[in-house]
Amino acid sequence: MQTLSVDLGARSYPIHIGAGLIGDARPYAPHVKDRRVAVVTNPVVAPLYLGRVQEALAQAGAQAVPVLIEDGEQAKGWATLERVFDALLAARLGRDALIVALGGGVVGDLAGFAAAIYQRGVPYIQVPTTLLAQVDSSVGGKTAINHPRGKNMVGAFHQPLAVIADVATLDTLPDRELRAGIAEVIKHGVILDLKFLEWLEEKIDKLLARDAASLAHAVRRSCELKAQVVAADERESGLRAILNFGHTFGHAIEAGVGYGKWLHGEAVATGMVMAAELSVRAGTLRREDVDRLKALVGRAGLPIRGPDLAIDKYLELMKVDKKAAGGKVRFILLDGLGRATLRGDLDARLIRESIAAAAQ
Amino acid sequence: MQTLSVDLGARSYPIHIGAGLIGDARPYAPHVKDRRVAVVTNPVVAPLYLGRVQEALAQAGAQAVPVLIEDGEQAKGWATLERVFDALLAARLGRDALIVALGGGVVGDLAGFAAAIYQRGVPYIQVPTTLLAQVDSSVGGKTAINHPRGKNMVGAFHQPLAVIADVATLDTLPDRELRAGIAEVIKHGVILDLKFLEWLEEKIDKLLARDAASLAHAVRRSCELKAQVVAADERESGLRAILNFGHTFGHAIEAGVGYGKWLHGEAVATGMVMAAELSVRAGTLRREDVDRLKALVGRAGLPIRGPDLAIDKYLELMKVDKKAAGGKVRFILLDGLGRATLRGDLDARLIRESIAAAAQ
Repeated sequence: MQTLSVDLGARSYPIHIGAGLIGDARPYAPHVKDRRVAVVTNPVVAPLYLGRVQEALAQAGAQAVPVLIEDGEQAKGWATLERVFDALLAARLGRDALIVALGGGVVGDLAGFAAAIYQRGVPYIQVPTTLLAQVDSSVGGKTAINHPRGKNMVGAFHQPLAVIADVATLDTLPDRELRAGIAEVIKHGVILDLKFLEWLEEKIDKLLARDAASLAHAVRRSCELKAQVVAADERESGLRAILNFGHTFGHAIEAGVGYGKWLHGEAVATGMVMAAELSVRAGTLRREDVDRLKALVGRAGLPIRGPDLAIDKYLELMKVDKKAAGGKVRFILLDGLGRATLRGDLDARLIRESIAAAAQ
Repeated sequence: MQTLSVDLGARSYPIHIGAGLIGDARPYAPHVKDRRVAVVTNPVVAPLYLGRVQEALAQAGAQAVPVLIEDGEQAKGWATLERVFDALLAARLGRDALIVALGGGVVGDLAGFAAAIYQRGVPYIQVPTTLLAQVDSSVGGKTAINHPRGKNMVGAFHQPLAVIADVATLDTLPDRELRAGIAEVIKHGVILDLKFLEWLEEKIDKLLARDAASLAHAVRRSCELKAQVVAADERESGLRAILNFGHTFGHAIEAGVGYGKWLHGEAVATGMVMAAELSVRAGTLRREDVDRLKALVGRAGLPIRGPDLAIDKYLELMKVDKKAAGGKVRFILLDGLGRATLRGDLDARLIRESIAAAAQ
């Protein structure tokens, strides 16, 4: 077990990474003793891991109540959230309850948001079982649900008490989801750490082949990089926005084709290519760097071309993106590989050209 | 204009109290310049004050978008919240938006909660127009909506940027709502300040006759007392719970008769009598102090007797109250008039007797 720390003063918490951790009482123990714990999960994850989590919790001295929600992005809305509250209230869980989010990004975002607002806030632990959740969504305290007009439009910053990332759970992950997770790993390299990006170029085939040591390193380094950014800017008043690299375009793709058709990581992959194209047009990135990014994204089995959407549709969808400040869309650009920057003054023509360059 | 401060470090904010403030640009100005502002209000308050608030905001340099919600406690649910989000998104308000909550407790709680979770949190200003909201719900950052299984079950702590309490708005308040607000004023005296309680005993008739100077003092002293408690314990980990005096019984009354039938302040009034009866039985209050509280509550035109509900129904409803820790209900008792204390070890028999003593 390796342990990193997200340094946020009184809200600091550990990220435990290792194979087999999910069924190990130790990482749960400091938080759950004599507590009633709701384990929020879905019917895909439950048969694989719920039993082991319940046993670990029992060993750590907690009483666990399972709460099953639907699988998939369409579950990430108020209707599901209300069913979670129904279950918590039916089990008479009070303000002293604790929630364990067991699953991928949807479970983590929704259960984390449920924890943020149930009885004005209860603590929670993230137990991510997908690569995307392990390297990205479980770390940093962003929780949310979707609104018909946009993804993650309603949510809260609510830091977990701990993140328990068991890399052995990635063995049961479908290939497509593994690749989608690699998109966010690539993102961390491309915006923050050229050396890590080079490591990824070297190890991409091993990651796709689920080599345990390579996956553990990718998760660890991704979490380290993200934790540094979150510690410097918890509530995204500045720096943290760079973690949204590729996401403005990516969210437009996800919304444009209908949520759940493209995986988040797939949309982010193509979004990163578009944002890199935009960086070239804004004069902050070389053409060969875009080609290098596209090559890595392609080798990861991720889409480098956008879906069949009109460019006007992209622009329309991007305007309601959360990153829109005062009606003006700001973009995260690459300032060379391994460094990102925020720009709010870009000509709409450049944005159109960048989408066109990476569209079907 | 008098200004108090709620001292919460970086989240400190002013409470401005005065007649005519609602249409004065000055208290809004530091917060709204060049900002797009959503004014959440209802069809009862809008014809009276929306125009003046919009003018004040315009003078302060803001663009205001009115968002109307239904009047009444039944509006305090997710369906209304979602309509607020629809309106904010339709108006393309982003993370830099600001919400003004113009109205009573329902508007303040709901609009404050909307601000807490819209795009993971935007700032807001409370402009309370009822006595209850001016002396209680607008101060302290508690926001929430109701759940079919309980009041305020879903919410957040989200402090406003400012509270603007215009005591002249109380002139248009129906008598019944004025009295309901006085219940919380009495509560502040009874749990925190015997001298203020004595002042209330002296001035109760003037308050009911809407004497401006008396109302201004009652609002000011209530806000001062509440602000001190909130500053000492923002997230209700201990001391702040005393502000819930009378509320465990009161919430059971509200839920038992059906939300909206009894006003919150009416239920709290009777709840305080029950909690005082319980204090006598727990040995922390004298019988003559209960009589004194009942006399004041009665003179304020508030109910000193509970509705026609079975005692078992009370007990059942109180168990899902948010103050239930680990399934055990804790009560706020009076330790003499002007002082409150928290007790979790009370025999169910004493609770039954206390309800019976104040029931129909």
